[in-house]
Amino acid sequence: MADVAPAINFNTKHLKKGDPLPPFAGKLRVYNMRYCPYAQRTVLALNAKRVDYEVVNVNLVDKPEWLTTKSAFGKVPALEIADGVTIYESLVTVNYIDDVYPQRPLRTRDPLRRAYDQILIEAIGPVQNMVQKLGGAPDAIDEPALDAYFKTLDLIQNELNKRRTAFLGGAEPGYGDYMIWPWLERILLYKHLNEKVEFNKPKYKQLAEYVQKMTEDPVVSQYAVSAEIFAKLMENFKNGIIDFDVLSQ
Amino acid sequence: MADVAPAINFNTKHLKKGDPLPPFAGKLRVYNMRYCPYAQRTVLALNAKRVDYEVVNVNLVDKPEWLTTKSAFGKVPALEIADGVTIYESLVTVNYIDDVYPQRPLRTRDPLRRAYDQILIEAIGPVQNMVQKLGGAPDAIDEPALDAYFKTLDLIQNELNKRRTAFLGGAEPGYGDYMIWPWLERILLYKHLNEKVEFNKPKYKQLAEYVQKMTEDPVVSQYAVSAEIFAKLMENFKNGIIDFDVLSQ
Repeated sequence: MADVAPAINFNTKHLKKGDPLPPFAGKLRVYNMRYCPYAQRTVLALNAKRVDYEVVNVNLVDKPEWLTTKSAFGKVPALEIADGVTIYESLVTVNYIDDVYPQRPLRTRDPLRRAYDQILIEAIGPVQNMVQKLGGAPDAIDEPALDAYFKTLDLIQNELNKRRTAFLGGAEPGYGDYMIWPWLERILLYKHLNEKVEFNKPKYKQLAEYVQKMTEDPVVSQYAVSAEIFAKLMENFKNGIIDFDVLSQ
Repeated sequence: MADVAPAINFNTKHLKKGDPLPPFAGKLRVYNMRYCPYAQRTVLALNAKRVDYEVVNVNLVDKPEWLTTKSAFGKVPALEIADGVTIYESLVTVNYIDDVYPQRPLRTRDPLRRAYDQILIEAIGPVQNMVQKLGGAPDAIDEPALDAYFKTLDLIQNELNKRRTAFLGGAEPGYGDYMIWPWLERILLYKHLNEKVEFNKPKYKQLAEYVQKMTEDPVVSQYAVSAEIFAKLMENFKNGIIDFDVLSQ
């Protein structure tokens, strides 16, 4: 484990149809999309463990022909472990990373806490839906979606209170924290679009503090995208433009 | 681990709204629905390990008031470990069971094989969709659904060929096998409804043999529901009747 995080270029150009597959050079490789919350899970796990790896960003609208040879589902993330040996699906890659890199274990060894971490990850669905709605038609957010969203926030806050630790993982973030984070981060970025999703209020004091601490975590901040960039992406998207490379050189 | 499987009554009456919660008597308890493929995962894991437990079957149409105190999602399976201490979601319960009962480990210790098991579990989605379609409108099954279904069958067969073992788990079924089984079992029960889903043909020779061997596995056969019962359930369902207790005393 390196003393400092390896310098990873997260902002490589997104390869598209017709672009050749960069030859595998023996370094662990993540097939990623810079703004994909699922792929972010894999990136956060690798960053938490300070593993050195390379990022191959992929244009998910105009997909390169070779993508399905890396993920049978043609999606990101995929993790290439050896030349042509690839696993995919966000939690599958993170579980593998946690299995093979022993430094800073992400999953607790306590079976019951481990189960509750997984339950929270399952429970994040309504927050994922809310992120989609905020990105699409924020004015159309209805009561059932809000109820489900706040029910998930209740579950997260209750679990934090039960554990009495700064993070679900303890004194620093762990599996549960990083696996639900990408959508909490996007709620922060999008919440101005509909005030009904705001959780910075007395009822969610602990949750709001937790989210604030998460934004300050170096593993998280290292990969964070600014509100300005997200606003630009969203503005482009509304005009029918998906500019994957807004952060790239 | 008992020499023989404990005698579990799987066919208890399905409790509904108004029915009291049976007091917890200290025995591990599964909140189940007799024909739920997700809850079947939990049952198969417990049966594989010959754990003694009790089944509380739940009417999922007319749900008992206390169900949400066992699963925040109001679903089955839920696993009650101690009085009021419950975990839920099928894979969460199975992972917990595999963590705390060391006999007959279901998950391989090899991280890469473990990853491929999880990928196959993710990949079962189109087979789950096909089961739903066969149970609902079998004549409306279209090419995209069939393509996705056969692509999943390809993935399973390729993995069996790669491992060169009788089951994904090796000489006996393991995690991958039991976690995808409930839907393969239902394909067998429903496939007469649309000949296009048939996979008993030369291309799927290994898969067909594998499925046959799975039906003969004692853990599977112990909980299997006959084609006649499933046909009766489906007939009832088409007439607007959901008879959860067709197998109960």
